[in-house]
Amino acid sequence: MMLTTENRTLITVITEGAIEEALLRDLDKLGVRGYTVSDARGRGSRGLRDAAWGEAANIRIEVICPRILAESILKHIQARYYANYAMVAFLQEVEILRPEKF
Amino acid sequence: MMLTTENRTLITVITEGAIEEALLRDLDKLGVRGYTVSDARGRGSRGLRDAAWGEAANIRIEVICPRILAESILKHIQARYYANYAMVAFLQEVEILRPEKF
Amino acid sequence: MMLTTENRTLITVITEGAIEEALLRDLDKLGVRGYTVSDARGRGSRGLRDAAWGEAANIRIEVICPRILAESILKHIQARYYANYAMVAFLQEVEILRPEKF
Repeated sequence: MMLTTENRTLITVITEGAIEEALLRDLDKLGVRGYTVSDARGRGSRGLRDAAWGEAANIRIEVICPRILAESILKHIQARYYANYAMVAFLQEVEILRPEKF
Repeated sequence: MMLTTENRTLITVITEGAIEEALLRDLDKLGVRGYTVSDARGRGSRGLRDAAWGEAANIRIEVICPRILAESILKHIQARYYANYAMVAFLQEVEILRPEKF
Repeated sequence: MMLTTENRTLITVITEGAIEEALLRDLDKLGVRGYTVSDARGRGSRGLRDAAWGEAANIRIEVICPRILAESILKHIQARYYANYAMVAFLQEVEILRPEKF
């Protein structure tokens, strides 16, 4: 049996736990149908801006979706959160089996 | 010193914690030599089928292996679990340093 | 608005929690400006060497940085830790929005 995969985009957002609920509400409004959240700790670049990025209460949010939606999410969170919160976001292409779910 | 990396495939499975043991047994039978499990929470696509995918007890299982084995795992879990469990699985190509381990 | 992304390299290191502090000190010395740590459990390849890789106290460290730095990190940890610790490390290319941070 041949395995047929399709490409989707994985967007990963690592940020402060304090904005988890706000971010998830935003994702919902942007049309995201599923996400995964896990806990992490981290430290950002040195400097005043990231002084609060301690070793606690960070979260990682992951969404698999079409490229166009991933880019919308990235643009939205940049406009809304980058100035005021420690946040890293990145995109990766992934292969999935069940395209009707994303 | 030149850095020589080799390609492998990373398969990530995010699913209900309830089937962790069954999945790990399956991976073992399929010839997987190592895996990483971490805890997560998430929400799947809206609908009856994923109603149980609440904000608790999800797991993420990751395996790095040759492409052919990653595809076998994907086919196996699709056949065995997709109909009855909230599950997302995806493949990514990664570069590793120590090929003899995978 | 066009979305302009830049490529960076994501290095992921999964290893024993016991060496978290040592590894983070090493990353700092290598010039890493930010990292994410999360907890995981796992099992490595069967054999004496990985006998201690039980289902507890593993960590995942992730760094997004220029390719050249990711390769330096990989070479360093291979030389310093691979012989004595259960460790998996891999590289992936990712797309980011805010290059000045990495």
